[in-house]
Amino acid sequence: MMKRFLTWGLGMLIVGLLAGVALAQFARTEDAITYRQAVMSVIGTHFSRMGAVVRGEQPFTKEAFEQNASLVATLIDQPWDAFMMSGGDKGSRLKPEALTQKDKFMQLAKASETEIVKLAESAKAGDLNAIKSQFGAAGASCKACHDDYRSR
Amino acid sequence: MMKRFLTWGLGMLIVGLLAGVALAQFARTEDAITYRQAVMSVIGTHFSRMGAVVRGEQPFTKEAFEQNASLVATLIDQPWDAFMMSGGDKGSRLKPEALTQKDKFMQLAKASETEIVKLAESAKAGDLNAIKSQFGAAGASCKACHDDYRSR
Repeated sequence: MMKRFLTWGLGMLIVGLLAGVALAQFARTEDAITYRQAVMSVIGTHFSRMGAVVRGEQPFTKEAFEQNASLVATLIDQPWDAFMMSGGDKGSRLKPEALTQKDKFMQLAKASETEIVKLAESAKAGDLNAIKSQFGAAGASCKACHDDYRSR
Repeated sequence: MMKRFLTWGLGMLIVGLLAGVALAQFARTEDAITYRQAVMSVIGTHFSRMGAVVRGEQPFTKEAFEQNASLVATLIDQPWDAFMMSGGDKGSRLKPEALTQKDKFMQLAKASETEIVKLAESAKAGDLNAIKSQFGAAGASCKACHDDYRSR
């Protein structure tokens, strides 16, 4: 009995500490929503710039492409905690399922990080065909999460 | 006469090319405003996190401070072109003076870049007193531009 109580107490302590970390980052859920929307908006702009190059609408310049890819790679691991705030689906396009399926959400989020980092690496290497192929993989990894957890 | 005409023609060509670059980045002024506001919002969040540490409200962790400073340093040179779009003062807090005093605006913007890069360097070095002092200089460089070109 005592042992079970201690385990429960330890569990609550960990939950409390984790909540504390989230609170330290964002005092209010609205702040978290503003933050993640801003990050996603900046990512969207730079991802679109790469898309225009991949589709041949803009000329390929290694330096510019690399800058866009590197900026997206720097930002991509920032917003996930801000999605996981209680009530974070209110007044936003986040589906409530994201908050009840945190593990799956985080899995998809981390998968997109991996693909984006690979994109930044291929941009650094500079082979346009490889870049185009990896851009496709990165875009698909974004879409996978949007399909499941973003309302239209 | 012919020479003056050629000079004028060359001037127009350069203006046209520069406009082309701006157009390539943002199809519409609204897009530029959305972009720069998103960048500034993300910068604001990470700058505030550093502020809380500098004021002693949050504990100093070199790794976290360095991440915040590095993210701000990565973003700080991104938004300036988006401020310089014609009509970019409409429906935003940008004072119209920014567009008629582009050189001064860009000077203040570049000065803040310099201070932010120094902040990222001092965060990397890890001496909290030096960091606090450079955080003050960086904040002052932001404020200098806001004072002149951002409406309250």
